[in-house]
Amino acid sequence: MLDTGGVLPDLPLPATLDTRDGDLLLRRARRGDLDALVDLLADDPVSAARGDAGSPGDRPVSASALDAVLDTDGNDLLVVDQLSSPSGGPADVVGTLQLTRIPGMTRVGTTRLLVEAVRVRSDRRSAGIGAAMMRWVQHDAATALGTGLVQLTSDTARTDAHRFYERLGFAASHVGFKYRRG
Amino acid sequence: MLDTGGVLPDLPLPATLDTRDGDLLLRRARRGDLDALVDLLADDPVSAARGDAGSPGDRPVSASALDAVLDTDGNDLLVVDQLSSPSGGPADVVGTLQLTRIPGMTRVGTTRLLVEAVRVRSDRRSAGIGAAMMRWVQHDAATALGTGLVQLTSDTARTDAHRFYERLGFAASHVGFKYRRG
Repeated sequence: MLDTGGVLPDLPLPATLDTRDGDLLLRRARRGDLDALVDLLADDPVSAARGDAGSPGDRPVSASALDAVLDTDGNDLLVVDQLSSPSGGPADVVGTLQLTRIPGMTRVGTTRLLVEAVRVRSDRRSAGIGAAMMRWVQHDAATALGTGLVQLTSDTARTDAHRFYERLGFAASHVGFKYRRG
Repeated sequence: MLDTGGVLPDLPLPATLDTRDGDLLLRRARRGDLDALVDLLADDPVSAARGDAGSPGDRPVSASALDAVLDTDGNDLLVVDQLSSPSGGPADVVGTLQLTRIPGMTRVGTTRLLVEAVRVRSDRRSAGIGAAMMRWVQHDAATALGTGLVQLTSDTARTDAHRFYERLGFAASHVGFKYRRG
């Protein structure tokens, strides 16, 4: 098992993102990013309410889930590193998102790029990090992967996120349904 | 290249669906189902308005898309056969849906089952075929694949479909955003 996945090998990574916080590095997640990823998910009230509270007891499940994403063809988990950490220490992970490439027959055989789990660390919001990540997905990633449609769902409670996606050119054309089993 | 995919090998297929039209057979799609699948997609005004009109010129693209779905790990394309065709001829394809299994770290490492392109032939609607397909996905497929969350999006214009998914226990908890590239 390699430390790095690379299960969407055509993605042009690593990439530099130009933001108001300076240049950030977008790269594939590694198994060593587990703690940073768990912290990022817990650093969000909607996620925390769904159980992503960063509890130590959940660590083995999160580690297995990270392994599964990194080992599953057609999926890639990305992180954004803030290179010039104010503390002068190692790079800080300040953002993440997951991509899945899905072939399909509808829309005249359009391949979809599904975006899940978009997060920016709460103390780095409003610096353009999320917009830079999403523009890279909509243009660089979608072009490299040959995906004509980029899609995602956002919890109805995230009204700020809805305006954010509409500013980026996404259409709120669908209702997102979820069914939790058992 | 095999004629049959089977890229979610744990799915308990073929399966019998009990509907008001009698017992139907749910099975994996094959390359030979291309014409039936193209006809099913064209037999829907929302799809047709997005370009799925069944034009002969689109046939090569649809064939390539079917190959891609059948060859991509983590995806499966299913069809429903009406075995006792009124004409006494071969089985009729009366329904279809696509499944994608997506591992992820959110919701405490919950693996998702994404449902795309759910269609029932227009002259077979209101016979419980769609409900039988979706119940199989929510229970049989989700259990076999270990996916704790089943998710899909539905065009805001499909208000009947929204009531249908809510009756099946889905929550309309999200907004579905789409971005068409280029």
